[in-house]
Amino acid sequence: MSDAYNLLIERIKSINTLSSIAFLLDWDQEVLMPEKGVFARTQQMSLIAGLSHKRLISDETQSLLENAEDAQLNELQQANVREIRRIFDRQARIPTKLVRELAETSTNAKGIWAKARERVNFEEFSPALTKMIELKRRVADCVGYADEPYDALLDEYEPYAKTKDIETLFADLGSKTAALLRTIEQATDKPDASILNRHYPQQRQETLCRQLLEVLNFDFSSGRVDTSVHPFCTTIGGPGDVRITTRYLENFIPSSLFGTMHECGHALYEQGLPIEHLYTPLGEFASLGLHESQSRFWENCIGRSLSFWKAHYNKVKTAFPNVLSDASVEQWYGAINHVTPSFIRVEADELTYNLHIVLRFELERAMIRGDLDAKSVPAAWNEKFEKLLGIVPPNDREGCLQDIHWSMGLIGYFPTYTLGNLYAAQLLEKMKVDMPDFDELVTRSELKPILNWLRENIHRQGRRYRASTLIQNITGKPVSIEPFMNYVTAKISTVYGL
Amino acid sequence: MSDAYNLLIERIKSINTLSSIAFLLDWDQEVLMPEKGVFARTQQMSLIAGLSHKRLISDETQSLLENAEDAQLNELQQANVREIRRIFDRQARIPTKLVRELAETSTNAKGIWAKARERVNFEEFSPALTKMIELKRRVADCVGYADEPYDALLDEYEPYAKTKDIETLFADLGSKTAALLRTIEQATDKPDASILNRHYPQQRQETLCRQLLEVLNFDFSSGRVDTSVHPFCTTIGGPGDVRITTRYLENFIPSSLFGTMHECGHALYEQGLPIEHLYTPLGEFASLGLHESQSRFWENCIGRSLSFWKAHYNKVKTAFPNVLSDASVEQWYGAINHVTPSFIRVEADELTYNLHIVLRFELERAMIRGDLDAKSVPAAWNEKFEKLLGIVPPNDREGCLQDIHWSMGLIGYFPTYTLGNLYAAQLLEKMKVDMPDFDELVTRSELKPILNWLRENIHRQGRRYRASTLIQNITGKPVSIEPFMNYVTAKISTVYGL
Repeated sequence: MSDAYNLLIERIKSINTLSSIAFLLDWDQEVLMPEKGVFARTQQMSLIAGLSHKRLISDETQSLLENAEDAQLNELQQANVREIRRIFDRQARIPTKLVRELAETSTNAKGIWAKARERVNFEEFSPALTKMIELKRRVADCVGYADEPYDALLDEYEPYAKTKDIETLFADLGSKTAALLRTIEQATDKPDASILNRHYPQQRQETLCRQLLEVLNFDFSSGRVDTSVHPFCTTIGGPGDVRITTRYLENFIPSSLFGTMHECGHALYEQGLPIEHLYTPLGEFASLGLHESQSRFWENCIGRSLSFWKAHYNKVKTAFPNVLSDASVEQWYGAINHVTPSFIRVEADELTYNLHIVLRFELERAMIRGDLDAKSVPAAWNEKFEKLLGIVPPNDREGCLQDIHWSMGLIGYFPTYTLGNLYAAQLLEKMKVDMPDFDELVTRSELKPILNWLRENIHRQGRRYRASTLIQNITGKPVSIEPFMNYVTAKISTVYGL
Repeated sequence: MSDAYNLLIERIKSINTLSSIAFLLDWDQEVLMPEKGVFARTQQMSLIAGLSHKRLISDETQSLLENAEDAQLNELQQANVREIRRIFDRQARIPTKLVRELAETSTNAKGIWAKARERVNFEEFSPALTKMIELKRRVADCVGYADEPYDALLDEYEPYAKTKDIETLFADLGSKTAALLRTIEQATDKPDASILNRHYPQQRQETLCRQLLEVLNFDFSSGRVDTSVHPFCTTIGGPGDVRITTRYLENFIPSSLFGTMHECGHALYEQGLPIEHLYTPLGEFASLGLHESQSRFWENCIGRSLSFWKAHYNKVKTAFPNVLSDASVEQWYGAINHVTPSFIRVEADELTYNLHIVLRFELERAMIRGDLDAKSVPAAWNEKFEKLLGIVPPNDREGCLQDIHWSMGLIGYFPTYTLGNLYAAQLLEKMKVDMPDFDELVTRSELKPILNWLRENIHRQGRRYRASTLIQNITGKPVSIEPFMNYVTAKISTVYGL
């Protein structure tokens, strides 16, 4: 082992330990902090962000990094140093003052967004969004980019990805989705989704969600489940402390059910990361797209499959006696795979979901380019929504105020959701080759071999490879929309009797 | 305003912001962190402790402090600088390495203590206690002391207090308490406390505690109530984020009821501190003894008074229909003021409570002196317990394993509990002179004027004065045991018909 390497790793671990505290500050604010705590919390967040940034880009870190790069390293060490260099170069270009300003603005803007959303008043949020866009544009200018500023932001969440590739992928996906939607419209045998809108008492939903988490092998000794306005997953202390949240709608059960399975997928990835590399890049997820592939895999590829519900539909029936006594498992399966344009992204079906992402991608790209100002977002949103999905949100709460992302400065983040859908389908395709009894395993509720496949191929790899390389290594081909289109077309054909 | 002063204050604010994060890390660990989170949490705690210590004792802080001391300052500024100097001098003598070792040992030892307590196995905890005593003894040696090492530890919690004064005060209090106990033993008209051991379902206790918190003017927009093994109050983000915990015993209602009012008293102090001095000494409590005076005031002087229950006993009856239908408010008052030697400090009556403190004070002082080793604590505890209270704990869970304090390194802390009892009684005495209709206010549940008296005289003063000076200023005389003995004797006379 090289001393130079160890010294660098020690430094990085201490910086990442510090950063990890910000995740607790944030989780606490989302889940349970009292209202008036926001004043002090803003200062705490800003301080941690500033301190860890300053320590990362310090001369000390730089010289440790240079020494490690000159040392004899094995392949794993090389990967770790490569990723540290990547983060260092990116962060060193952003002034600490801007980092702190971002942290403060985000902490404040989240509160403003939550209130504006509650009161369905976009104007309350508009100035905060303007400020955030301006800050993120400044980040892009500091970091630098080849084609357009959005590249610099996208790269933070999906390393090495390019806006123009996303644009091409999304254009193809958009037109094929539109074609499939037209076919569905003409189908005569449509599933009845109204059974999902019956009355499902919250407490029973909570119990059911907990059961499903156990089925999916969520490790409760290394995590928690709580309630928040916007469901999320966060890692507070490495694989040993991974927390998810969900929300409950008594007249729409998929919200908690699939939200929980979705966040559980994220959590399984985090709980499976190599703890021996805690607080170094090798101990982190490869990209947000890959992260999303894990959540979408468990939410959709497993959680919306007929095989899965053959094993677990009884749990739903038991949780809500008499509510579903007239509905067979096939009807349930049809309902949860019912495809129809709707307003809320996190509750959209698998097919139209990607159109929600295309919309957000186009809007935020325009904002960062300077082609769209915050004030005009509601109008632009509604116009584009109608074009893509054929419907117009009745208000901004169900329109442009629904997501927390922009308030937090997560701009360039949305495309990773659709990348996740594509990765998940491509992984599923390969998994079924490796495990020919895949469907039988799911029906028998033997999900451990499936989790282990993901653990070995993805989770245990941490950030050793780029996401695109990892997908290529595992599946033998580059990322494309074909596996997803095949997967979703096949499912829709069975549900709609096409 | 002096520039030198402002620069110092800015520095101190940033250091205290950092330290405040440790309170969230700690609260989270106590209340809801998943089991396997402890590995990363230990590192997070150690890092924050080390960083804030390093920043406090840095040359930069020192020179800012010296500049501020040379500047022209008003009285408030002088007080702030005086207290910063006090903390600086103390902390500068403790090496950062020792501070981090303490933080790590404490985070680990808390977990070990909780398990040992659960399994009623002192031996599991003994090595951690040995280690902690050794570290605290090293702290005392670094800080320095005039008479004995315990002085250096006591001073952390009750600034300017001396072991020998505590010893004198406690000796007097101990003998007067023993005499009063003998009188009680001979009383023929003893209250029946068994009504407190009836079945009180937890959920209804929770509702009742919430109602009482509202009665006591706890500000829920600036705080939370949760459950933990050992009830506590902690301040995470200044007066805007003050959190208390409690615990529920279904067959002993005083545990949650008076525990909640106790922690609420602490919270009211914190919620009332001057936010304009947030993260500087002027914005902090004066001493832990004074803090405890606030909790004991609301728990005992208010919460165990007949006036209070004349207004609120109906709430208890409503919360538990039929459980107390045979008990009058006078019987309830008698039961909650029943005096009898018992094992658990936090559930002890007002009179014998102080004997629990005398015991802990003597044991920890002996440990720090080197006269008692950790291994011998159970035997020493039981022997002393019998001498002071006439009974022997049936096991260590109800004996020397009951308190979290030693595991956290809180040694020199226990005496502040009894100081709090003395301060509270002395404040009450003066309050009744200032507000002759005090009892009527309580009976009418008009507690705002009482809270405002405390706000003005104590809370808003922050750390402007030493605790002993503040008590002298408010009551016109130095701290003594007389007001407490008068208060407790009068109460016992009514309860026991003496």
